[in-house]
Amino acid sequence: MAPIRVGIVGLSASPGGSGWAKETHLPYLQASPAYEITGILNSTLESSQEAVRAFKLTDTAKPFPDIETMAADPDIDLITVCVEVKSHAHFVKVALEHSKHVYCEWPLAKDLKETEELAALAKSKGIQGYVGLESRLSPVSVKLRELLSESIIGKVLSTDVTGTLGTPPKIWSEKALFYLDVNSGQSPLHTRFGHFLDAFCFIVGELDEFTSLLATHEKEVKVYDVAVPLLAQAATNPDATSRMVQRTSPDEILIHGKLTSGALTSLHIRSGSTDADGNNLRWLITGTEGVIEVTQKAGQFL
Amino acid sequence: MAPIRVGIVGLSASPGGSGWAKETHLPYLQASPAYEITGILNSTLESSQEAVRAFKLTDTAKPFPDIETMAADPDIDLITVCVEVKSHAHFVKVALEHSKHVYCEWPLAKDLKETEELAALAKSKGIQGYVGLESRLSPVSVKLRELLSESIIGKVLSTDVTGTLGTPPKIWSEKALFYLDVNSGQSPLHTRFGHFLDAFCFIVGELDEFTSLLATHEKEVKVYDVAVPLLAQAATNPDATSRMVQRTSPDEILIHGKLTSGALTSLHIRSGSTDADGNNLRWLITGTEGVIEVTQKAGQFL
Repeated sequence: MAPIRVGIVGLSASPGGSGWAKETHLPYLQASPAYEITGILNSTLESSQEAVRAFKLTDTAKPFPDIETMAADPDIDLITVCVEVKSHAHFVKVALEHSKHVYCEWPLAKDLKETEELAALAKSKGIQGYVGLESRLSPVSVKLRELLSESIIGKVLSTDVTGTLGTPPKIWSEKALFYLDVNSGQSPLHTRFGHFLDAFCFIVGELDEFTSLLATHEKEVKVYDVAVPLLAQAATNPDATSRMVQRTSPDEILIHGKLTSGALTSLHIRSGSTDADGNNLRWLITGTEGVIEVTQKAGQFL
Repeated sequence: MAPIRVGIVGLSASPGGSGWAKETHLPYLQASPAYEITGILNSTLESSQEAVRAFKLTDTAKPFPDIETMAADPDIDLITVCVEVKSHAHFVKVALEHSKHVYCEWPLAKDLKETEELAALAKSKGIQGYVGLESRLSPVSVKLRELLSESIIGKVLSTDVTGTLGTPPKIWSEKALFYLDVNSGQSPLHTRFGHFLDAFCFIVGELDEFTSLLATHEKEVKVYDVAVPLLAQAATNPDATSRMVQRTSPDEILIHGKLTSGALTSLHIRSGSTDADGNNLRWLITGTEGVIEVTQKAGQFL
């Protein structure tokens, strides 16, 4: 079978970029015989050309100036979208309108309305659309699902997740303001917690009913006009300019609910420190015959 | 100052009794020079007389035939009530009507309406009424409150309690049916969790708003007409008679809420096993400057 020809939206080669596509999409696409990278689209044509050169894609990949041109190109089968969430809907919509398959980073769009419109469009076109929810593929997730499918702890009675998003930052970057904005679709609620919740439901089943409670403890954040890695340096520079920004995204998340299985569940993603053992995630699954406990010292949940 | 003269309601000397007053009220009242036991009231006059003899109270304590006679006696200053919760209101009310001070085991009554009526009566009489909420006096509670009052972890951002009530029993005793009945005021929700919740609020402050979710996983319980300590024996005796009783009291309790301080809190008292470390209670208090964690391997919470 001929390889799937992939156009990548958002593959920054510059040090100020997020680095996400470079570190996750690119190595796999380059290593797998199932894919061939045939296009790159960054915010400018120059930046697209720079990425083609920097990542040595010159034999195969065209730099594109805009999504319309990339989506119309007959040498593109699949478009992957790896940019700020606020722009997801724009790129995905054009790709779908040109009947290209799509792989878009989670979350697909900034709110439910946009998401439902894109899903309906993909369906009407008969297109395969994928959203990048990778936590369910982690070894921990796969093993947990396997253990529960074997009823290793009997019938599941309850599950309990506690974890921390870390201490809310008092300083932040203009380049990542979406983090502070609950309406961006890219706050920690949507991204870090969203990924975890997908894996959670994949493992123990969907929530049948729930209530939630959110809090924003650190409401005012000092924002510097530098990239995230340069924040600490800016904060000690008396000449660095900054402004105060109101944070609206939550830094603490509570969900109480009942799973379709009848098991009760509590998810409490707090602010502040790890627990006294240094865990930033602790997940207890209690059954009639035993208990499974997952703890994690650092890094992304699952 | 002359000792306070105490009448005890519910001091069983028989092996089938709960033993609570014998193990908690009696030793303190006998040891303290501040109290003198001047009356005993059990379910029958014979049982009252038996307790007076068995606990060697003959020099001071009168056996009483009923609460009206005890409450009217001029040699009684304070009446302690240590019987099934469904009878609390009856005894407390008569005591208050005779202007006796009262110490009643928690919960004061079986529901809010009865409780408010008793509180109003005590107030109208100018009587000191005490409810036995001893968890707030445990060394752990006292130390936690002291640490938080010293802001040892900065401002408290969140608290998280997980614990287990143990595996819901599949067999139970006719002598303690109140445990299975959510309307008895004496289910694990009211007693074990109630005591914990009092200590919790004493330490971190009151809940400002909350939602709750309850479950009853083990809905049918086989009930034998024997006392609790004899249950295991009855279950292996083919001649023992039993019946099935519908359990209405919850065996799992979730509360999500916000404290008056603004800290978010989750309380999840589950069914089933301890956690993987063998803890039946785990309480995390996270602050801006650190974390306090309380774990407990067995026994009553706090």
